[in-house]
Amino acid sequence: MKDFVIIGHKALTTGDFSLNDLPGSAGRMDILCRCINSALFLSHGMRRDINVHLVLLGEPDPGKIVRFNGEELRYLNPDERSSGSLIKKALEKDATDYETRSTPGVWIRRGGLEKLIKEFREEKRNIYYLREDGEDIGKINGLAQNAVFVLGDHMGVTDEEEDIISRDSSATLSIGPLSLHSDHCITIILNELDRLEQPQPKKD
Amino acid sequence: MKDFVIIGHKALTTGDFSLNDLPGSAGRMDILCRCINSALFLSHGMRRDINVHLVLLGEPDPGKIVRFNGEELRYLNPDERSSGSLIKKALEKDATDYETRSTPGVWIRRGGLEKLIKEFREEKRNIYYLREDGEDIGKINGLAQNAVFVLGDHMGVTDEEEDIISRDSSATLSIGPLSLHSDHCITIILNELDRLEQPQPKKD
Repeated sequence: MKDFVIIGHKALTTGDFSLNDLPGSAGRMDILCRCINSALFLSHGMRRDINVHLVLLGEPDPGKIVRFNGEELRYLNPDERSSGSLIKKALEKDATDYETRSTPGVWIRRGGLEKLIKEFREEKRNIYYLREDGEDIGKINGLAQNAVFVLGDHMGVTDEEEDIISRDSSATLSIGPLSLHSDHCITIILNELDRLEQPQPKKD
Repeated sequence: MKDFVIIGHKALTTGDFSLNDLPGSAGRMDILCRCINSALFLSHGMRRDINVHLVLLGEPDPGKIVRFNGEELRYLNPDERSSGSLIKKALEKDATDYETRSTPGVWIRRGGLEKLIKEFREEKRNIYYLREDGEDIGKINGLAQNAVFVLGDHMGVTDEEEDIISRDSSATLSIGPLSLHSDHCITIILNELDRLEQPQPKKD
């Protein structure tokens, strides 16, 4: 399993938003919708070995985690409205400290970045922090296949969040020479992992 | 300049569609909207050296080309509705054989794949055709910086279109071991070009 964590600093924490205005009414929920698409879609199917954790920190009830699981996911189409609609349905559930399933493959609970990172640490997962000045993902050796990747949104990552991540992260990575949107970073990370997983041709 | 050509086989050719239903009412226009986003957005700005040509082949008036130019583009936000809205405005113009500007950085005209490829051939541009079984983009040497990349949509590329492209293409490329959506392919191609453009560190 590979896990992506995306922090939505302004993302609304109720389902009270319009699918016709994901950027405005839902606190840049459009960014998180595009991350769902990048992490889960293949041309002819879905990446079944992926979890995406959206950490929603906006008003009015900050600190909710919506998880999309590629293995069990249903009813997701590639367009932003489709993932927006599943997030909205999740946010319409009462969130507790434990996960509640809203639709097949989508869960919601209360929590934030610290809770997630603690769980990954206990599972002894390799946590990679994505930052513009990190080590180029194309140049490092041995990226773990069961990795966890943590990314910010349009506001980046706060100092406090960075402290939480850095304590447990294996490395700080960048996806290349230019700074890109989170969903584009996810596409590049997965392409890199796809190449690493591919059996190498035998040398003569 | 780099150019991306995306063929929208079912994409509507009037502006008579709903931004609330880009996949259904507009013939999978959502795919083309995501390609616009991938080709043009950087984290803090826009890729100014990019043209995106959407070849719209759906009903009721097939054969229109909408061009987005990164250098002059305005009023584009990253969400699908935003690019959908600019495409809709372009399609509301009367299209002729020559380009008409609908909004800053967006043009429309009549035409199809053959016309575009002919123009690129006359400009002596390197044309790359993206196909699952092509040569891995990460393994080829000397990808041209002023390249033209041609991609299909969810329906791929027809035999007839493939003949038109293949006559003038420099190479058939793939973006890695798995088959991905066109917008994800564009992200990976641009990441590859970004790395090639980056000055290499001097060896001691």
